[in-house]
Amino acid sequence: MSSNFNNLRINGDRLLNRLSQMAQIGGTPKGGVSRVALTDEDKAGRDLFVKWCREAGCNLTVDQIGNIFAHRAGTQNDLPPVIACSHLDSQPTGGRFDGVYGVLAGLEVIETLNDQAISTNRPLEVVSWTSEEGARFAPAMIGSGVFAGVFDLEYGLTRADKDGLTIGEELQRIGYAGDVPVGGRPIRAAFELHIEQGPILEAEEKTIGVVSGVQGLRWYDLIIEGEEAHAGPTPMEHRRDPVAGLSGVLQRTYELAEKNAPYARLTFGNIKAESGSRSTVPGRIRVTIDLRHPDPQALDSMDKDLRSIVEGECRTAGLVGQVEEIWFMPPVSFDHECISAVKRAADKLSLSAMDIVSGAGHDALYLSKVTPTGMIFIPCAGGLSHNEREYASPEDLVAGANVLLQAVLEFMDS
Amino acid sequence: MSSNFNNLRINGDRLLNRLSQMAQIGGTPKGGVSRVALTDEDKAGRDLFVKWCREAGCNLTVDQIGNIFAHRAGTQNDLPPVIACSHLDSQPTGGRFDGVYGVLAGLEVIETLNDQAISTNRPLEVVSWTSEEGARFAPAMIGSGVFAGVFDLEYGLTRADKDGLTIGEELQRIGYAGDVPVGGRPIRAAFELHIEQGPILEAEEKTIGVVSGVQGLRWYDLIIEGEEAHAGPTPMEHRRDPVAGLSGVLQRTYELAEKNAPYARLTFGNIKAESGSRSTVPGRIRVTIDLRHPDPQALDSMDKDLRSIVEGECRTAGLVGQVEEIWFMPPVSFDHECISAVKRAADKLSLSAMDIVSGAGHDALYLSKVTPTGMIFIPCAGGLSHNEREYASPEDLVAGANVLLQAVLEFMDS
Repeated sequence: MSSNFNNLRINGDRLLNRLSQMAQIGGTPKGGVSRVALTDEDKAGRDLFVKWCREAGCNLTVDQIGNIFAHRAGTQNDLPPVIACSHLDSQPTGGRFDGVYGVLAGLEVIETLNDQAISTNRPLEVVSWTSEEGARFAPAMIGSGVFAGVFDLEYGLTRADKDGLTIGEELQRIGYAGDVPVGGRPIRAAFELHIEQGPILEAEEKTIGVVSGVQGLRWYDLIIEGEEAHAGPTPMEHRRDPVAGLSGVLQRTYELAEKNAPYARLTFGNIKAESGSRSTVPGRIRVTIDLRHPDPQALDSMDKDLRSIVEGECRTAGLVGQVEEIWFMPPVSFDHECISAVKRAADKLSLSAMDIVSGAGHDALYLSKVTPTGMIFIPCAGGLSHNEREYASPEDLVAGANVLLQAVLEFMDS
Repeated sequence: MSSNFNNLRINGDRLLNRLSQMAQIGGTPKGGVSRVALTDEDKAGRDLFVKWCREAGCNLTVDQIGNIFAHRAGTQNDLPPVIACSHLDSQPTGGRFDGVYGVLAGLEVIETLNDQAISTNRPLEVVSWTSEEGARFAPAMIGSGVFAGVFDLEYGLTRADKDGLTIGEELQRIGYAGDVPVGGRPIRAAFELHIEQGPILEAEEKTIGVVSGVQGLRWYDLIIEGEEAHAGPTPMEHRRDPVAGLSGVLQRTYELAEKNAPYARLTFGNIKAESGSRSTVPGRIRVTIDLRHPDPQALDSMDKDLRSIVEGECRTAGLVGQVEEIWFMPPVSFDHECISAVKRAADKLSLSAMDIVSGAGHDALYLSKVTPTGMIFIPCAGGLSHNEREYASPEDLVAGANVLLQAVLEFMDS
């Protein structure tokens, strides 16, 4: 394919219009969306996407974990395809761009090639992965995870929501239990376009984030055990108060994050006192800890320091602290060829760009295990995401889709 | 009445035996009791108490809020009575001594006077107050509260449990909706004997706590507002993390309690992060604070300091902290005459004793508003209460009842 496609541009109005239409499905009064995986709203979103893909002449397939593949044939269909992908499901009160933007931008790349009657050697596929958010079914990124062989199909199908409904049952119910085997075929390259979900691009006034990889992450459940006691009669020095232990742990762990600035991320997402009676010293505190760092060694050393902080603070206060790691995702570096393609695409389009590390997990993370993978970020207002007020400007949305188009094109004939 | 009653002693076996019998009603497998106010179990406990009082020759009356009065006539029945009182209701998984001990020890005082055919000038009444625990109907201490004029009768009768059943309806159902007007008559003095519900007497190896008063208490709801943000992509310095604010508040408030040692009590009974997602910086933290001190000025100054800590820590971290006081109970000092009587009784009996401040609320707190009031504490194992494992030794139970007997006797002819 020759370089005369350097001036090719997607149809911004069509993309923005489709984003708006899709945001009606599960639309919330505050302008966000609620299209949680495998609900009726997710089905409606999938149906609309499938309808548009069919209208664009794509061949549609659904695999056994419900991933949707919209296939645009190439001139050499035995060559592994290039894929552009993300997810259509949302958080319970999510934003209108997280995930769906990457899927509809992928479709827009196909539409643009169709408009110009451009044929490519390789096939191009737009993919929507099942249940990326993990808001209903844990863990997150189950569709891409099964595709990449991270999870067994059986494991994926049997993940259950809080009412005991499984992914398998709910795929059947909404009509997306496909029969195509999951994964196991070669892919030339995968690109995922996404809003940043953080404030860096906005703060740095850059339009394009060239994503070099994904931060490593460790999730912990911290339990501090003390002893319940009546708030009135029990003198402070007789107490085994887990909140006093928590106080020290918070203080010193935030100091640890500061010591590992600017890349360390530390989040206490949930804190719960048990039994939670106003006039009783809690017997137990449960805390979730989310620790991230792009450097494997720094993440390991923070892990050690965290454990020693909990041990020290709890011992001092006569408490028992347990740190249980429930998830470890080592830092991932994306494919150099893909990263370069994104960088060149931004240059061609004269867009301001910077290297960035993804703080969040994405389907691209799992895909990178089985195919050369790259990601493109665009700014989102105030770094706000997983929030109905999530916003990205029309200009940036169009710019990002053009970067996706140019990056994908580099691989279509290679 | 002459001092030749100094050697009078209660019948310890009878008291312990009755405590055991009463503990069968609502008895739990772990050895505690569940005799929640106005349940069938509470009715059964009341019935057994009434039966024993009738057998002891008492005249039984029930007032309109269900308080039970067992009246032993004096030689001058127009004189205001002395009362010995506590409550028969329990926590849902409560102990076998909290409340019931004071009631049955009061009955034991009457039995002892009967056994020796001792007549007194004043009448003696044993009282069981309705719904002291507040476990089913909030607020706590409703029977004594209405008696003391703290609450209207109408207010008391209309308190509802979580199923919407009111105290008035439930009193009717269990047959304890009496017709005697509540309170409004003179009482010479009131004594409440109770387990300490704290570890002090045990730690100090004293048998009798001479209760000088009840700690003042302030209950607060603290809300720290920040902003939800994705745990991965959001750099630490871009966050408005309410847990970071909480960290400082905990640290400095515990320091405040230490500054006001040994009498200050500080309890964070409940802590809740919203929305509580593992991978999201919480938007809001809700914390309950229970602050106590027996000295009114110290309690006031801690109130001011607490507010200034929250304001300072939140401002520093770019958060908004709100401290809402939801209950204020000023410290109460019991009657000097009653306190002295308890102290003398312990001396007469050669029991080790110490002054102590009650950390918990008791019916005696409200009674002290309308009559000279005193309280007697005995140790409980490990300070444990509101717990099925609550335990007091037979020796201490008997010793406490003898102190009650001697203290009551001082007032019977005075």
